[in-house]
Amino acid sequence: MQNDLIIRAARGEKTERSPVWVMRQAGRILPEYRELRASLSGFKELVETPDLAAEVTVQPVDILGVDAAIIFSDILVIPDAMGLPYEMIKGKGPHFPEVVKRKSDIEKLNVINGEELTYVYDAIRETVKRLNGRVPVIGFAGAPFTILCYMIEGQGSKTFSNARKWLHANPKESHMLLEKITTSTINYLKLQIEAGVSLYQVFDSWAGVLSEELYREFCMPYLNRIAQEVNSVPNIVFAKGAHFAMEDLMSSSYNAVGLDWTMDPKFIRAINPSKVLQGNLDPTLLYASDDVVVQKTNEMLRSFAGGGHIANLGHGVYPDTDWRKVKLFIDTIKSSKN
Amino acid sequence: MQNDLIIRAARGEKTERSPVWVMRQAGRILPEYRELRASLSGFKELVETPDLAAEVTVQPVDILGVDAAIIFSDILVIPDAMGLPYEMIKGKGPHFPEVVKRKSDIEKLNVINGEELTYVYDAIRETVKRLNGRVPVIGFAGAPFTILCYMIEGQGSKTFSNARKWLHANPKESHMLLEKITTSTINYLKLQIEAGVSLYQVFDSWAGVLSEELYREFCMPYLNRIAQEVNSVPNIVFAKGAHFAMEDLMSSSYNAVGLDWTMDPKFIRAINPSKVLQGNLDPTLLYASDDVVVQKTNEMLRSFAGGGHIANLGHGVYPDTDWRKVKLFIDTIKSSKN
Repeated sequence: MQNDLIIRAARGEKTERSPVWVMRQAGRILPEYRELRASLSGFKELVETPDLAAEVTVQPVDILGVDAAIIFSDILVIPDAMGLPYEMIKGKGPHFPEVVKRKSDIEKLNVINGEELTYVYDAIRETVKRLNGRVPVIGFAGAPFTILCYMIEGQGSKTFSNARKWLHANPKESHMLLEKITTSTINYLKLQIEAGVSLYQVFDSWAGVLSEELYREFCMPYLNRIAQEVNSVPNIVFAKGAHFAMEDLMSSSYNAVGLDWTMDPKFIRAINPSKVLQGNLDPTLLYASDDVVVQKTNEMLRSFAGGGHIANLGHGVYPDTDWRKVKLFIDTIKSSKN
Repeated sequence: MQNDLIIRAARGEKTERSPVWVMRQAGRILPEYRELRASLSGFKELVETPDLAAEVTVQPVDILGVDAAIIFSDILVIPDAMGLPYEMIKGKGPHFPEVVKRKSDIEKLNVINGEELTYVYDAIRETVKRLNGRVPVIGFAGAPFTILCYMIEGQGSKTFSNARKWLHANPKESHMLLEKITTSTINYLKLQIEAGVSLYQVFDSWAGVLSEELYREFCMPYLNRIAQEVNSVPNIVFAKGAHFAMEDLMSSSYNAVGLDWTMDPKFIRAINPSKVLQGNLDPTLLYASDDVVVQKTNEMLRSFAGGGHIANLGHGVYPDTDWRKVKLFIDTIKSSKN
């Protein structure tokens, strides 16, 4: 590997500077991505066609100069493979025609052994081949609770109140569902590693709707099981909005903990200085002038001083961001020194 | 006033038990509300017809036995009166046909002196008359930043990224807009008090999308100006999701600080033990069995021990909640003792 900065940083080794990648970098902002996307029937065609997925995965390495490529895919391939297919509706997001309503719906779901998602592994293999050792490939999956949210609600939501209602009203069934998702996710991540990913991230995108008590009961055990059973490469957990869970996450089995832009790295670092942190520039800062982008990126870097750091935004890059601002963010980090 | 428990609690006086009310209690869950609502052309007719607004404001006092009535209205009457009318779209929420896009849009907005919202004051007067001293009436307004969010985005959003973009890209114009909203809100709240409210709450519903730095620059000065200029009755600030702003809010000019269900009262209490706290049962707990509702409500009460407390949910009650569970929550609090 010509550039293994992110692997060394994730393992907690001292690095010459913070490595940088951007959540949602493969897709959304690059004109080259949009051109390809526009020529296709839909989002799922891109996810399920390994050659095309590899192409958009490599674009940000070529164009933006990031230190790692994250495989172009979606966290919802797991419920899809387990028996709940989704559609991506333009301007609205994912939609599941069928959702989990009762115990028998959970019993019908498959625990996948991973083979169902061959197109993802093929895309990883093709990406590794095309990158030819330039930078590592990051794999990923959704956290079990976030996947449960979609399985119950069938779409995005501001509060995921139906999913939370389910945890309270059907705790036993919730655990049964989380078990099935967790086992499927472990099998899936192991095959991603076999196909060539050098690092993986678990996205708990809807963590912020819970509380310390619920997170401890319904999230941490499953997150830790994943990290413990999929441990042949370093890993990152990103629980957006879960300020109440930071103590648990900072003592979890993950190498690195991602922070959203609302979190103060100094405060989180103090909980456990040996844990690597990832993040956390507010992605809306990339709408500001160049001067402000550079200044705020440097301030962000300083706020992570005193321990291991992987530079990133505090949330996925927003679709209407000018890719040149993203490049400026990346270049600023690459010209910094630890 | 026969029951002035909430006023005494908000002032920081020791009370025989925690007073209780529920965010969104006037509307949403009661069959009596739904029946009336179904007979009308729309949400705005109810908001703008004082007799009807008073009727649904009093319903939860009669049926649920809460310690205060909150006037039935909407935070969006302010942008409406300032010159940006909204529509309430069934199943989707508020929508503004016109939004703020540039400085000249802000210049066109009125600073209201309050008189534009006569229907709200009339509804308050009618409510006070109907309650006849049984419980106090709570007035309210949206926090300036939350109103700005709607003025920029024109509708609800998961990230309010356009509003955040505005703060970064147009800080001067943002302050100009926040000034106009703040002055309008102050005039509005003063006239609510003149009409008879005994307490008011400022809702910063979208606070959670910011960060400590942004909150300090774009929110706290305006929130504090409201509390300082509208100080003839006690007040409560509720900044949902703003975990990063709790230190600032706990040293703010408000009598009481509302907590959402993700916040730990013990931790917040320690910041400033003399501040009154409000909250914070997870509203989805009201979907659990009666035993669990009683147990969790009592646990919640204990978590607020050691200082002033106004009992409430940690968010507005969700529309599909069984009103009997809400009553059980209220009865459990009323049968407790400090």
